[in-house]
Amino acid sequence: MQPEIRSPAFFIGQGASAGDLISFGSGQPDLPPPPSAFAVLEHFRQFKYGSVQGELALREAIAKEYPSATPEEVVVTNGASEAIDLVLRAIAVPGARVALPRPYYYSYPHNVELAGMTPVYYELEKGKINFDSFEGAVQGCRAIMINSPSNPTGTVQDIDTLKKIEDLCNNLGIYILSDEVYKDLIYVRENYPMKGKRVVTINSFSKTYAMCGMRLGYFHTLDRALVEKVVEMKSHTSMNTSLISQAMGLAAMGERSTYVAAHVPIWQKRRDIIYQGLRDLGLDLWKPEGAFYVLPKIKNSTRAMHDLYYHHNIITYDGVWFGAPDRLRFSYALDIPKIEEGLGRLKKFLENEYRTYA
Amino acid sequence: MQPEIRSPAFFIGQGASAGDLISFGSGQPDLPPPPSAFAVLEHFRQFKYGSVQGELALREAIAKEYPSATPEEVVVTNGASEAIDLVLRAIAVPGARVALPRPYYYSYPHNVELAGMTPVYYELEKGKINFDSFEGAVQGCRAIMINSPSNPTGTVQDIDTLKKIEDLCNNLGIYILSDEVYKDLIYVRENYPMKGKRVVTINSFSKTYAMCGMRLGYFHTLDRALVEKVVEMKSHTSMNTSLISQAMGLAAMGERSTYVAAHVPIWQKRRDIIYQGLRDLGLDLWKPEGAFYVLPKIKNSTRAMHDLYYHHNIITYDGVWFGAPDRLRFSYALDIPKIEEGLGRLKKFLENEYRTYA
Repeated sequence: MQPEIRSPAFFIGQGASAGDLISFGSGQPDLPPPPSAFAVLEHFRQFKYGSVQGELALREAIAKEYPSATPEEVVVTNGASEAIDLVLRAIAVPGARVALPRPYYYSYPHNVELAGMTPVYYELEKGKINFDSFEGAVQGCRAIMINSPSNPTGTVQDIDTLKKIEDLCNNLGIYILSDEVYKDLIYVRENYPMKGKRVVTINSFSKTYAMCGMRLGYFHTLDRALVEKVVEMKSHTSMNTSLISQAMGLAAMGERSTYVAAHVPIWQKRRDIIYQGLRDLGLDLWKPEGAFYVLPKIKNSTRAMHDLYYHHNIITYDGVWFGAPDRLRFSYALDIPKIEEGLGRLKKFLENEYRTYA
Repeated sequence: MQPEIRSPAFFIGQGASAGDLISFGSGQPDLPPPPSAFAVLEHFRQFKYGSVQGELALREAIAKEYPSATPEEVVVTNGASEAIDLVLRAIAVPGARVALPRPYYYSYPHNVELAGMTPVYYELEKGKINFDSFEGAVQGCRAIMINSPSNPTGTVQDIDTLKKIEDLCNNLGIYILSDEVYKDLIYVRENYPMKGKRVVTINSFSKTYAMCGMRLGYFHTLDRALVEKVVEMKSHTSMNTSLISQAMGLAAMGERSTYVAAHVPIWQKRRDIIYQGLRDLGLDLWKPEGAFYVLPKIKNSTRAMHDLYYHHNIITYDGVWFGAPDRLRFSYALDIPKIEEGLGRLKKFLENEYRTYA
């Protein structure tokens, strides 16, 4: 009897890339961080508590990436996950609504509920925000979340739309949590960091610098009262973010431009291959503009995910987990021979048992 | 105008031990971690996500410290703080009461409130639990917290009392969160890890191995459903604990017995000097049995803390922050010449402006 796969947690830490397995599962870069991130380790000797808000040198470096930002507007966290958790808890009004994109990153609804609020959804159309339906969905919300580039859709929102959302939320007094963790993996334009006095931009070292395991993230906001509230909260819930992770992150930032410039073409090439490969197999999908996910239509996605894993040794993630039933999420964070091998296996699946699907 | 000092956060990250300042403030070891903790860094090359529950090798090493424990019963966290935060959130019933010792570690009431519950208190008598009044205080509670050795009292609870508490809470179906982060800094006996099916023992690498800045903690419980719930929650709120902090912690554990054996006498000598020094100054206090705090009586403690800081260059923590008004907390995590210099300054304060206190 094969165990049922109920969430991404089934695959994480299972040695998913061991042996003959091809993993299109977990969303983490396979290529190593900038060498300077590891180089800093040999002489690292700090051990005392650090600033709960984050080491000043790191916040200074981060602030330089935002127009006229100051280190006081930045909080360093245990990954973007903790930034989202703490910001939602800090702004929480019991039972208030928070509008999420659908499809969504699978943690978002949990994050909202863990903060004692209620998730509601605005529907993406082929991964894009329709401003009119967005406007209707967000009325009366405490906060909204934006995720561009998006996990799992791979889409990037239009700057015009983002600016209209800034104005709307500013007028309505709604917080914007803009999850921009894929800001350095965009194929179609520069990132547009969202702006406004109630805007919180959330970011991470996980994707830009391949530092998932070090759990280093941060947020930036002009709302100094919110910064103060989160720092006070964090002083009770986790204190400073690991100093050694912060040291690695600061070192990595010194190589940002060359590292990102070298990596974006690698991601783009993989994107092109998987996108064309899935199209050639007859699947319906849109072309990703950022991040490293494709989200093709597959009827009965839950059964397909199980069959692909148990019969073809491929990990994919069920679209249901992202609010996208009848789709599968493929992360293309693996090398081209593996992508091609995976596409070959998928072809066999589609030509054989998939035909038998209801 | 001197700024008002409203919480320990005022001192943290202010360079409290710079220049001529003597800090009896922050509760963190001044002596470095075991050399192997840093030695492991040079060859560290992991960067992908790790197990949300914690790396298996580390959980195996931790499990060996608890009688017949298994790695499945251990969750690795961002310090003891995150363990407390997640466990309280996982067991939370909105509005339910959680009984805390008073004096308490200053984060506890915040942790309870952040989990949507209500702190109530059982009063310590000279730092000790009176079982009869404890029994009255905990009726109807969802959980209780125990902290032995205690921050800020420095007391260690009698094993008989702890066993009676185990029985009582087991019969009443109340969770016990036993914060044992000072378990390896006890001068009077071995640690007694609390036991029972609803017991959660919380621990940390911060005090035992002087790794505060790396934020590495964990909890152990026989309640597997609670483990599962916390891991699921953590997969949304912070994911794995920093892998490099975990690697340092695992290396440090290899030196546990020699490191702890070498350090306890150092702490004990400092304890003897500050205890006798404060007694010689005529202060009323009890003799600490563990951890590295003394909590003498000082009338008008808030004003005393300010005067000591602004006029005598000594950091102390106001007892008010710990639910112990008219006391000051001194951490003796500093070398003997500094302790003696600090005692000299305190003498001047007591002989001069303290006489003018109401």
